[in-house]
Amino acid sequence: MKSDLLALMRDANLDALLVLGDALHNPAMVYFTGVAHVTEAALVLKRGEDPILFFNPMERDEAASTGLQTKGFAPYDYRKLFEESGNNAQLAKARLLQLALTDVDLTSGRVAVYGQRDTSESFGLLTALEELMPSLEIVSDYADPVLLHARSTKDEGEIAEMRKIGEQTTEVVAQVADYLASQRAKEGILVNAEGQPITVGNVKSHIFLWLAERGLDNPHGTIFAPGAEGGVPHSTGSPDALLRLGEPIVFDIFPVQAGGGYYFDFTRTWCLGHATDEAQSLYEDVRYVYDTIMRELKMDQLCSLYQDRTCDLFAERGHPTVKEDPQTEVGFVHGLAHGLGLDVHEAPRLSRDATERDLLRAGSVVTIEPGLYYPERGLGCRLEDAVYVRPDGKMEVLAPYPLDLVIPLKS
Amino acid sequence: MKSDLLALMRDANLDALLVLGDALHNPAMVYFTGVAHVTEAALVLKRGEDPILFFNPMERDEAASTGLQTKGFAPYDYRKLFEESGNNAQLAKARLLQLALTDVDLTSGRVAVYGQRDTSESFGLLTALEELMPSLEIVSDYADPVLLHARSTKDEGEIAEMRKIGEQTTEVVAQVADYLASQRAKEGILVNAEGQPITVGNVKSHIFLWLAERGLDNPHGTIFAPGAEGGVPHSTGSPDALLRLGEPIVFDIFPVQAGGGYYFDFTRTWCLGHATDEAQSLYEDVRYVYDTIMRELKMDQLCSLYQDRTCDLFAERGHPTVKEDPQTEVGFVHGLAHGLGLDVHEAPRLSRDATERDLLRAGSVVTIEPGLYYPERGLGCRLEDAVYVRPDGKMEVLAPYPLDLVIPLKS
Repeated sequence: MKSDLLALMRDANLDALLVLGDALHNPAMVYFTGVAHVTEAALVLKRGEDPILFFNPMERDEAASTGLQTKGFAPYDYRKLFEESGNNAQLAKARLLQLALTDVDLTSGRVAVYGQRDTSESFGLLTALEELMPSLEIVSDYADPVLLHARSTKDEGEIAEMRKIGEQTTEVVAQVADYLASQRAKEGILVNAEGQPITVGNVKSHIFLWLAERGLDNPHGTIFAPGAEGGVPHSTGSPDALLRLGEPIVFDIFPVQAGGGYYFDFTRTWCLGHATDEAQSLYEDVRYVYDTIMRELKMDQLCSLYQDRTCDLFAERGHPTVKEDPQTEVGFVHGLAHGLGLDVHEAPRLSRDATERDLLRAGSVVTIEPGLYYPERGLGCRLEDAVYVRPDGKMEVLAPYPLDLVIPLKS
Repeated sequence: MKSDLLALMRDANLDALLVLGDALHNPAMVYFTGVAHVTEAALVLKRGEDPILFFNPMERDEAASTGLQTKGFAPYDYRKLFEESGNNAQLAKARLLQLALTDVDLTSGRVAVYGQRDTSESFGLLTALEELMPSLEIVSDYADPVLLHARSTKDEGEIAEMRKIGEQTTEVVAQVADYLASQRAKEGILVNAEGQPITVGNVKSHIFLWLAERGLDNPHGTIFAPGAEGGVPHSTGSPDALLRLGEPIVFDIFPVQAGGGYYFDFTRTWCLGHATDEAQSLYEDVRYVYDTIMRELKMDQLCSLYQDRTCDLFAERGHPTVKEDPQTEVGFVHGLAHGLGLDVHEAPRLSRDATERDLLRAGSVVTIEPGLYYPERGLGCRLEDAVYVRPDGKMEVLAPYPLDLVIPLKS
């Protein structure tokens, strides 16, 4: 959490963090500013000091609303810099940043950089800045990012936000279940009262609206993938697809607080009316692994153990896994889980890429999402909940919701 | 437009473009792929060839749906690369990219890079790639970006999309006007039928929902800023703020097609019931400049002329402008306009940063948005429409909507 930053920066021998970009849909910036309508900002955090937010004068009120110490870019006179650089925006922006950093006495040392920007801008800007400020060492710590380590454990305020969006998400999930249960079946297809088929597109429109009613953004869309489409983990479901009774539907929903605050991430697999034997059997294997892993999660354990354990549990039940064949496209084909927070995928990793720094620490929030995929058989199944590692070591599912496979139709 | 890319790349002496990141909310990628649930992708466009999209195997169906030539990252075996690099994700990803580029015979020459990524990732990745592939020159062309030049004129398919979102946006604007007009006044404050004040937060909730009903994302929120808040161009309006009759409200709405397609951008300034004399007078000056500039827009003209002309027109009417004082926070304080497309601000520029490459070309879509700001007097006013420069040289407002200042209350 934020209070770890001082120690983390010391361990990584960093003198400062520099975060670029907007305070909207930009996790590294929002971590410090909260969601705010501040664009083209820069945040400087010198080790052991309070962060300073540089802003554009048109956004002075929004910048002030962050509660951070702020400084306007205006005195550095971008216009003049632009002219002096022969109308070269890249050079002018690098000069602007140089003036801002110099103003806060950050002219040497090791500085790690973060923030969502277009690559053409960030790469050019930082390359130019390196030339302008040779005593400054610009560090990309992507392989082992201090900021992601800090964010990988959440403080109480963050957990409160995540509980809130978890509750909102499961409310929407309940609305979807109720909507589906209220329809009828006709020749094995879900139809509405008028006998018209319900499509994946219909369901997604409702989801979009019900999320919006709660003020949630849904920038990455929603996976609502029936049958074979659910057999490919990231297939999102074709709008025209129909819903066949008995067939498993993978429903993975990952909204974010308006403007890009905290994400939630939640998956259920549903069969409408009844489950086919194949779907039921697949579900039972996934559910068995889900239950086993949930029981075995322990604070301060290495995340990689659980990826390994998940593969073993699935293999015991006769499924191919990425452990024996990293390229497999059937069976268990992905990572067990990932951290969740201002990004939908963040630290710690509970996948094949987990390292010794990926631990289930007090304050971690991770998804647990075992799944099985057999696209050729028209089958996929995944169950996903977000788990909070409480400071007392207990594991808490942040937004509990029934895991049932079958949604019985009301009529 | 896309058909210009070959010539633009030749002029800039570029052998290839490399676009990184998702096919969601990532303009450089979406330009080629359309909106698709493809994450951690890479697109390579060698000069004069068709683009190739590299994808992650879990997203093979979504990648195929783009209609592009695709190649999976799977054969390069990220897992093995990760292990070989001592569990260093940055190095492993650079190696992965090296293998992909080598596979399509891109091992030397000048390559421009694009795509939304976290700076910590892109800077480190490209720095590492430069070391791995010394014959490849990685170019940041941010100061004069080939891809933005191509995107700065739109083909017919793109214009059709922009017309669609323009129409949807003005439908929502009409709903907001109707909603406001249907309320009552009580002691100079807008209240509902029960006499409860209507807040900015109430209005924004409706906007959010009405956009969602049309399947539009609203990642940057909406500006609905009454009184003094409207006097600061990017203040978005506090949720608890009340709406006073007669006071100007700046309403700036900039939604995007679901998943990050084309944006729209539209502003009106409204007074409820009646306008105060001050608001009316400010509006008339802005309207005069809006009308004058709209009349004067000409194909193939330098964009910078219009910024200059706008400043002169405002100055003639006694307002401070950024032309005489670049730091001014009263009067006309921003650029006249900007290009609009897959990004809410893109080329061409019609602001102080416009260069000789910023022209009103056939196919350009630009906003025209003169405004005046007097926060101390509790006043702001801006009018904004999106203008399409048709191939025949005519200027067309993409989504016409009345410019009226006053919204009379129905009761």
